[in-house]
Amino acid sequence: MPSPPPLAAVRAGVPEHGEPPKYYQVKRKIDAVLDELGPGTPLPTERVFADRFGVSRMTVRQAIRELRLEGRVQRSGRSSVAGRPKLVQPLTLASYTEGVRRQGHRPGRRLVVLEQLPATPALAAALQIAPGAPVFHLERLLLADDEQVGLESTYLSAARFPALGDEFDPASSLYAYLRTHGVAFADADERIETVLASPREVQLIGTSPALPMLLLNRITRDHAGRPVECVRSLYRGDRFSFTAHLTEGQ
Amino acid sequence: MPSPPPLAAVRAGVPEHGEPPKYYQVKRKIDAVLDELGPGTPLPTERVFADRFGVSRMTVRQAIRELRLEGRVQRSGRSSVAGRPKLVQPLTLASYTEGVRRQGHRPGRRLVVLEQLPATPALAAALQIAPGAPVFHLERLLLADDEQVGLESTYLSAARFPALGDEFDPASSLYAYLRTHGVAFADADERIETVLASPREVQLIGTSPALPMLLLNRITRDHAGRPVECVRSLYRGDRFSFTAHLTEGQ
Repeated sequence: MPSPPPLAAVRAGVPEHGEPPKYYQVKRKIDAVLDELGPGTPLPTERVFADRFGVSRMTVRQAIRELRLEGRVQRSGRSSVAGRPKLVQPLTLASYTEGVRRQGHRPGRRLVVLEQLPATPALAAALQIAPGAPVFHLERLLLADDEQVGLESTYLSAARFPALGDEFDPASSLYAYLRTHGVAFADADERIETVLASPREVQLIGTSPALPMLLLNRITRDHAGRPVECVRSLYRGDRFSFTAHLTEGQ
Repeated sequence: MPSPPPLAAVRAGVPEHGEPPKYYQVKRKIDAVLDELGPGTPLPTERVFADRFGVSRMTVRQAIRELRLEGRVQRSGRSSVAGRPKLVQPLTLASYTEGVRRQGHRPGRRLVVLEQLPATPALAAALQIAPGAPVFHLERLLLADDEQVGLESTYLSAARFPALGDEFDPASSLYAYLRTHGVAFADADERIETVLASPREVQLIGTSPALPMLLLNRITRDHAGRPVECVRSLYRGDRFSFTAHLTEGQ
């Protein structure tokens, strides 16, 4: 333990009680071990940790479970390894593909489904089209360095992009496709929150059901102020973080 | 069940298997009930739901547990009520206080501790001061309409703001205090991710340990480009969402 800080508390409001539970103390200790191991290195067994810290294997298991949900520990086949740092994705108008590439990783997309649906009232309002009008729904798995990290649903007016179903290669960047069709993005509104993945999403992305996800909902507009797309992107909370640069007047 | 969509799938990639687990079907049904009840209305009992949907009470309990983690169901004393919508906080240079007020809610802060600490190497690098130099650590509970919704730690150089410990009222806006001392914010870098709260944070905020939280880390700079503060803000994932307006060139 480090020595107590040489500078004293000035004021205190809410009182604190007790010491952290045992599993949490073990979690902090394993966390320090992970720093030494470095990403991808296999973890010692639960038994080794239990002996070293003088606790039960159950306590070690609870600590490692939390570290896994936070991405500090990852599965590799049947064993556990020290996790890699979370991917950092800037919140910009750029696409997922461009964002991941800029961070030095290899982006990829895998088609789940490309279908036509009638716009629900909410979707019609967001895209400023008539309710029931046909929209393309493009759903793709998001990959980074071949790892499945998210799931993205994009909705576009089928009247505006009638050839999309025939022409578009789902493994490529949709934004590049739209650019070749004369669409330039001017601005977007985005909402970020944390949610639990549905069983279908868990199955598609391949995560554990308890894993918190980051959900981004976005409406992107062109220079005429017309909505071009509605996007619902779900990112693994243990693998992703987002950054924003904030300036005056925003 | 709604009738199948009149427009067909164009292409499909990843195949899908099976139907959603029973608890998830029940979750979707209770979710629809919540829409009808409206925020603050007590939920029917587990037994009522179990009878209505022809499932066990365990299945209902699992469904309600997930709805609680997502903020769709909230505790009110010993009973469960339909949750209010998540608070929406814009990602801007404005303070928490200003952001919450702008959304029509009543912000509040409650002091946990105001203390002086020697800067850790990471903190010193972020604030561009010498390692070990004294920093003020101001930790406050964040309130919205008297509900505890988060916990915020702000770190500032004590050499730059020597009178903060004596002068500052922890229930007020720190940014207002800094403005009266001639500090104007020019820009900030922010990082958003989802984490699990520590036992201490759970105890202070008063949430359940399993609840996913949104963590924001921020460095705010003045017009000279000098870092003014480092902030670590933890928000309840069931009560908060963040919005960003994105424009070209960001």
